[in-house]
Amino acid sequence: MEGRPVRHVVSARQFKDPEQMLALFERAQWMKEMLASPQGRRGLRTTFAGETAVVLFWEPSTRTRTSFELAAKHLGMSVTSTENAAQFSSTIKGETLPDTIRVMSGYHPSVVVMRHTQSGSAQIAADCSTVPIINAGDGSGEHPSQALLDLFTIQQEIGRLENLHVAVVGDLRYGRTVRSLMYLLTRFPNIHFTCIAPQLLSIEPELIEYCRRHGATVVETEDFAQGITNVDVIYMTRIQKERLPDPTIHEETRGRYAVTAKTMQLLGTPTIIMHPLPRNEEIAPEVDVDPRAAYFRQAENGLYVRMALLEWVLDGTPK
Amino acid sequence: MEGRPVRHVVSARQFKDPEQMLALFERAQWMKEMLASPQGRRGLRTTFAGETAVVLFWEPSTRTRTSFELAAKHLGMSVTSTENAAQFSSTIKGETLPDTIRVMSGYHPSVVVMRHTQSGSAQIAADCSTVPIINAGDGSGEHPSQALLDLFTIQQEIGRLENLHVAVVGDLRYGRTVRSLMYLLTRFPNIHFTCIAPQLLSIEPELIEYCRRHGATVVETEDFAQGITNVDVIYMTRIQKERLPDPTIHEETRGRYAVTAKTMQLLGTPTIIMHPLPRNEEIAPEVDVDPRAAYFRQAENGLYVRMALLEWVLDGTPK
Amino acid sequence: MEGRPVRHVVSARQFKDPEQMLALFERAQWMKEMLASPQGRRGLRTTFAGETAVVLFWEPSTRTRTSFELAAKHLGMSVTSTENAAQFSSTIKGETLPDTIRVMSGYHPSVVVMRHTQSGSAQIAADCSTVPIINAGDGSGEHPSQALLDLFTIQQEIGRLENLHVAVVGDLRYGRTVRSLMYLLTRFPNIHFTCIAPQLLSIEPELIEYCRRHGATVVETEDFAQGITNVDVIYMTRIQKERLPDPTIHEETRGRYAVTAKTMQLLGTPTIIMHPLPRNEEIAPEVDVDPRAAYFRQAENGLYVRMALLEWVLDGTPK
Repeated sequence: MEGRPVRHVVSARQFKDPEQMLALFERAQWMKEMLASPQGRRGLRTTFAGETAVVLFWEPSTRTRTSFELAAKHLGMSVTSTENAAQFSSTIKGETLPDTIRVMSGYHPSVVVMRHTQSGSAQIAADCSTVPIINAGDGSGEHPSQALLDLFTIQQEIGRLENLHVAVVGDLRYGRTVRSLMYLLTRFPNIHFTCIAPQLLSIEPELIEYCRRHGATVVETEDFAQGITNVDVIYMTRIQKERLPDPTIHEETRGRYAVTAKTMQLLGTPTIIMHPLPRNEEIAPEVDVDPRAAYFRQAENGLYVRMALLEWVLDGTPK
Repeated sequence: MEGRPVRHVVSARQFKDPEQMLALFERAQWMKEMLASPQGRRGLRTTFAGETAVVLFWEPSTRTRTSFELAAKHLGMSVTSTENAAQFSSTIKGETLPDTIRVMSGYHPSVVVMRHTQSGSAQIAADCSTVPIINAGDGSGEHPSQALLDLFTIQQEIGRLENLHVAVVGDLRYGRTVRSLMYLLTRFPNIHFTCIAPQLLSIEPELIEYCRRHGATVVETEDFAQGITNVDVIYMTRIQKERLPDPTIHEETRGRYAVTAKTMQLLGTPTIIMHPLPRNEEIAPEVDVDPRAAYFRQAENGLYVRMALLEWVLDGTPK
Repeated sequence: MEGRPVRHVVSARQFKDPEQMLALFERAQWMKEMLASPQGRRGLRTTFAGETAVVLFWEPSTRTRTSFELAAKHLGMSVTSTENAAQFSSTIKGETLPDTIRVMSGYHPSVVVMRHTQSGSAQIAADCSTVPIINAGDGSGEHPSQALLDLFTIQQEIGRLENLHVAVVGDLRYGRTVRSLMYLLTRFPNIHFTCIAPQLLSIEPELIEYCRRHGATVVETEDFAQGITNVDVIYMTRIQKERLPDPTIHEETRGRYAVTAKTMQLLGTPTIIMHPLPRNEEIAPEVDVDPRAAYFRQAENGLYVRMALLEWVLDGTPK
């Protein structure tokens, strides 16, 4: 297999072409339809029967790991995984990432799904791997399957990926999810962002610049009630204590913005609520029954998008 | 699948009907016979080929987990599991159990097998899951597959589940295994219990009440030699340090009751020795070779009963 | 199955007959060829379809575990594994190894692959198991699949297993890998060892004795440049801090011997560089591109040898 091109999923930004994303979402939609019936499920399981995935997580994330593993299994693959590669394994014996990846790819897996604590790790892995690498999150860097499932969810729920007004709320500085979403959305025409964040967690000027340069409009506010008026999507995020440089920021900012039943009453019908989950107090449980609460469907969409990504790298790999 | 009834295994007490238990044990017996031959094993593997189980353990238990996973695999299922969900995952990020279960069931597993530290968790999970939940133990609460495999073992070894004299020995207060067994056994006619426990670990009056109300007789003693005379089953338990409210109880009570080769000489032939395992000093290794030592066969029966439970929930789930 | 002979892989030394090793390597070679093509891979997957492996690691080793798991999966088996049985499971509740193995083998796995912290554990397990045990390393004791993959690599790279001059370098006292390799190599005719080690980590006199008694020659030196002249194989090892009786030995000895691009220039063409990996500073990354750098191929060979070992125990087990 050496020397021939292999498809990797390293960064959300590698999906530069909106057409490529739309083609991927068509496959995700197809996966969703197939999984909805017993015949469809049985059919899916023959897709990559006998192919194997190695799941290497240096940082635990049960949700993402389970989602990728079930995506692989629904496609008939078998999976070998490690939940906490940082504590185990050769890492504590001082092995470098390239050495680990070279050894793993020598075991002939069909794909390696990896999550790492260091930003840029997925690219390093892809550079020395003879099998496809899928980045399931590398530190404060990239988490492309999350960004893609967010876009897929907007398309599923709103019916389009253009002419959108999206309010992004919470930690816009350290939360990688929402930043990746903004990068991808600006690939589509006529996008408006309202950024609602505490001063300490406000969006970086470079990202605003980037969005505007690509034709999106960006407005900043600290006023939640005003900011979420007349938007198509409210994208809530958790203040991620574990990613903040200073823990006091967490105490000062958590719970400032929250969607409650009362919020829902004030919203226009077409507005949907999204959240990458897990949530803390940003969305009250009472909201869950509202049909506009899209976050559990959003999580479910992660399965379909990951199945489509696995298909994309496996079909693109020289056999 | 939403809105339609789904079968869960939450509590040993949900098996109110002895006929339902006997039907389950017939299936467990069938699983045992099938696994005994290569043709049988191959046949079994097509049963649920392509179905998937998610195994979520918030509390480690390699034995129970392996037993459930192999049960699923012998039936052809594939399994995605986490050994220590409490340390990993969204739990440390403050996610609630219902959120975790809602997300997991959105990934379209065929069944979720869960073990949790909190009593009552399995019911909470079942209440918000669109896929079957099997309780593999929730804290000091329920561990239904253990209770059922104990009953199945008595049926296999003694040949009946009525007219039984059972000595239960050890920690009768905090050990959930033996209490669940007593609940289930009282569903059958003419059951006699001799409860042998140190004062500090004696059986709760409510459970004695319950047994008597359902027609069983209960005698209490601290005298081991006398208590095990003329019984059909001696059910030994470990004093579980990790479940005691006060560690000094462990020091005071451990090793008070033990089955040794000498004990076996005093017993009548039909008496069998059971233990949920792992054991400490309650049963001397020298006893293992005695044909009346049923505890390893009992552990093995766990596999067959779990296969029967998986079949029960999967066959009962609308496809 | 009880009472009938079962094949175990406990020790490298059980492979007394060179012919048996060569037969195993022929199968490993066949596995390699099969995995190289899509048709071959599909064919392999039917070999043990439906068979199950239980992987029990009391000591973490992601590399070895993944290698065994993928070996099993490439042969169509399904795998249930635990990464850290020492922290989990019944071990902390005081269960003995024989009890754990007896329970596990009662769950009808086709094979148990185990790694343990205590030397001699694999033999204890084999003595009480009704299913095959494969030792994936037990403490400072044995790691037979590593020793066999080292031999297989020499055969693949040099083309023979006789008339060899092998320089073994680094920790020759506590490193089990290199000692097992020496034991096995002396089964073949006309073997010469040059042992290059710091005084504190020099080879045990008993092992030198053993090699000489079996017809091999052994020379000791602390001079790296001289010792590696005109050898067929340079077998580098890491100074394993975690296995040393005294951590200061690590500081005193690490990095004393290292293969660099300059070393490679001085070598004759046929000399290959081996290393069991992970490496620290014993081999500079600049060496990786040299065709004589065999260590990543060596790691890959572990997959093929483990597949051949799985086949050997499974084919030898009464069904």
